[in-house]
Amino acid sequence: MNQNIIIHRVLPMTKRLIQRVTNEGDVVVDATAGNGNDTQFLAETVGPNGRVFAFDIQQEALDATKERLEQNDCLTQVQLICDSHANVKKYVEAPISGAMFNLGYLPYSEDLSVVTRAESTIAAIDALLDLLKKDGIITVSVYDGHPGGPEERDALLEYVRTLHQKDVHVARYELINQRNNPPFMLAFEKMRDFTTHERIEC
Amino acid sequence: MNQNIIIHRVLPMTKRLIQRVTNEGDVVVDATAGNGNDTQFLAETVGPNGRVFAFDIQQEALDATKERLEQNDCLTQVQLICDSHANVKKYVEAPISGAMFNLGYLPYSEDLSVVTRAESTIAAIDALLDLLKKDGIITVSVYDGHPGGPEERDALLEYVRTLHQKDVHVARYELINQRNNPPFMLAFEKMRDFTTHERIEC
Repeated sequence: MNQNIIIHRVLPMTKRLIQRVTNEGDVVVDATAGNGNDTQFLAETVGPNGRVFAFDIQQEALDATKERLEQNDCLTQVQLICDSHANVKKYVEAPISGAMFNLGYLPYSEDLSVVTRAESTIAAIDALLDLLKKDGIITVSVYDGHPGGPEERDALLEYVRTLHQKDVHVARYELINQRNNPPFMLAFEKMRDFTTHERIEC
Repeated sequence: MNQNIIIHRVLPMTKRLIQRVTNEGDVVVDATAGNGNDTQFLAETVGPNGRVFAFDIQQEALDATKERLEQNDCLTQVQLICDSHANVKKYVEAPISGAMFNLGYLPYSEDLSVVTRAESTIAAIDALLDLLKKDGIITVSVYDGHPGGPEERDALLEYVRTLHQKDVHVARYELINQRNNPPFMLAFEKMRDFTTHERIEC
């Protein structure tokens, strides 16, 4: 990797943002464990005294994640949860430092029909904003090239507009001259302490 | 200013990017001097041994910029040029480290009909990409709330799509839940040495 690069691609950018707000021993959430890429990154970032709650609705994903964490010697600080991330408050207590989402389907899966959906994605982000500490960050990598992707993207952008800028700053970041429809990033920063936040009527 | 903020607004973000690639003694360009905000920032970044070429087509803007630079004791390293930034190659030689644009009209001016236009903005960016050193950055703060703004924005985004990702990375960054139509940022990073770059047919 070229260390001189300033304009990062989306996936490295999500990690850089999470690293800025997460210390050893912190509690964080991987809302979409998938093949465990972000789970491993989070587990290594918070270390053995921290805690990662990693959600996926596909056991196949959690199995792959578990194997990856074992191979990289960072399974002990991770709790794998086979449930919708929309139910995050059943498992996780405030405060958390950060959370990461990778929307779309499980890469390399045989069943690409299982995808994240607007309703549960938004419910999960909304719950995580409550759980987040002030100055905490949620990153969402949004893919819109698959069936259902554009609908999820549009619903998510509409939801963002209901968040008051005093409560949450939401940034959109993307490289716009790239081939192969890369994801864009949404990043949420919690600007003040709240457990339920204001709504703006769109 | 809250030092904890991670998700920066657009104008501070442009300065952070330029600071990452610019050292004392470097040559840089303020393509739209305006009231001298970026010119002063650039002059202080490159210091008395550096060089800032500051363009504006309005003498009123250059007068305000000059006064600001004098007050802040950094006029000596700045050359004020009353000409279109599209003619940048008449005045500036490669390599430069960075360049900044603030599109739209001169803030607080009595004549808000003088605005940047797609044709000269794009010609200037294209010339500056040639002049830029590898890993150099051009930032463009794009306002689209004024008459002519949407047309300039759309032409600029179309131009960006003609830049090959091997030559230039172009990022778009914006806060998307803010009131009052704030600008978005385009940032161009030169990925390899070139003096004329490849074109992609749209």
